[in-house]
Amino acid sequence: MSRGNEPAVQLKADERIDDLERNGYRIIQKKNGFCFGMDAVLLSGFAKAYAGERILDLGTGTGIIPILMEAKTEGSLFVGLEIQEEIADMARRSVALNRAGEKIKIITGDIRGAGSLFSSASFDVITSNPPYMDQAHGLKNPDMAKAISRHEIFCTLEDVVQGAGRLVRPGGRFYLVHRPHRLVQIINVLSKYRLEPKRMKFVHPFADREANMVLIEAVRGGKPMLKLEKPLIVFKEPGVYTDEIRRVYGY
Amino acid sequence: MSRGNEPAVQLKADERIDDLERNGYRIIQKKNGFCFGMDAVLLSGFAKAYAGERILDLGTGTGIIPILMEAKTEGSLFVGLEIQEEIADMARRSVALNRAGEKIKIITGDIRGAGSLFSSASFDVITSNPPYMDQAHGLKNPDMAKAISRHEIFCTLEDVVQGAGRLVRPGGRFYLVHRPHRLVQIINVLSKYRLEPKRMKFVHPFADREANMVLIEAVRGGKPMLKLEKPLIVFKEPGVYTDEIRRVYGY
Repeated sequence: MSRGNEPAVQLKADERIDDLERNGYRIIQKKNGFCFGMDAVLLSGFAKAYAGERILDLGTGTGIIPILMEAKTEGSLFVGLEIQEEIADMARRSVALNRAGEKIKIITGDIRGAGSLFSSASFDVITSNPPYMDQAHGLKNPDMAKAISRHEIFCTLEDVVQGAGRLVRPGGRFYLVHRPHRLVQIINVLSKYRLEPKRMKFVHPFADREANMVLIEAVRGGKPMLKLEKPLIVFKEPGVYTDEIRRVYGY
Repeated sequence: MSRGNEPAVQLKADERIDDLERNGYRIIQKKNGFCFGMDAVLLSGFAKAYAGERILDLGTGTGIIPILMEAKTEGSLFVGLEIQEEIADMARRSVALNRAGEKIKIITGDIRGAGSLFSSASFDVITSNPPYMDQAHGLKNPDMAKAISRHEIFCTLEDVVQGAGRLVRPGGRFYLVHRPHRLVQIINVLSKYRLEPKRMKFVHPFADREANMVLIEAVRGGKPMLKLEKPLIVFKEPGVYTDEIRRVYGY
């Protein structure tokens, strides 16, 4: 696997390399495993990171969010925390492939123990695209790595929010993408850990369909005052992305 | 004031009669006072009332919501509770004007004392278009009746939700229209009183603008599972309503 003078990175038999259409960056994914979705791309477009800020991604998977945010923002450090060593290793190889190891660090570890891995309030921004399914919804996936990405097996929504509330500085921002059907619990848990939602955006597959994603910016200790942004519509007609989606993807 | 064989209803000097474009119904409003807004009309279109159901509107003002819902639904009884006797009297005269006194009752009373006016769990449906402004936001209105309609002077959001949670039957529905900037508090308070949001719809003045209203259906003791409906867009171009708005208004 090499293209011109790109770094030599080992690729396993069940892996492939995908283009990210951003900064020339690429990402290693499993051929038949859990691949990053539109959720991660939209979160990386919704989240803001300003010059010099330190960003932590909880449950980073293949590293898609730190890799895209490193390409899109002026943040100085992007840390991805991932519990599955095999997936974290893929993320590290993607970082190497993109020669981004100076600014992106992938750490293998458990969100529930993140308080002992990092100092309290040591990040300006925290991002997360956590598993959406709680124990009550959706069948477990027979592929364990996929199941861990989709179901709350290793961590619940509350674990993620509690971790974010501890690791982000007061006034710092937590960016979350999740499913609208769990919005009530999401808001209650954010309130419990003093992460005040300040900006929210719903994503609808078509303009006349229910929302299937929600993007939230919450500020640690922020004052109550929510801005409900214009809806993000994915398709203007079947198979044709809207201009906003094309912009986020960088097409 | 009479039109054909309509009931003789006293109109005061500072009042006027407006058409509701629905069922031939009309409503008495102050010429220079607080008039019903799109909020009330949209709530009456969002709320459901099935045959035989009993509906209570908390803070009914001029009675716009019970009058529209009596015209639109098969509910059997519509009660409006209003704290300001002068406004309640206008509502009663509008009910008489529409010959709807069999099914619509206007009661003068305080939401905070509603538990002693009505039996617990005695309604299938509760609606409310409460004051939006808490003490922290917006200037007080020098016109006291207007101020009471807009600011949380006589009742807070929590008073309204607490009253709804007590007066609606288990499994019954509470319909609320409010401002998105207070969504976090709205959801926290609904959760506190076991009113589970099941359906939510945001209203945007234009497709590319922030939402300025939210419509919520909550079920007493309902299971968590929210449906985030397609956004309601008010104008397709400046001054031109969308088809959905025209449908709700009955044009």
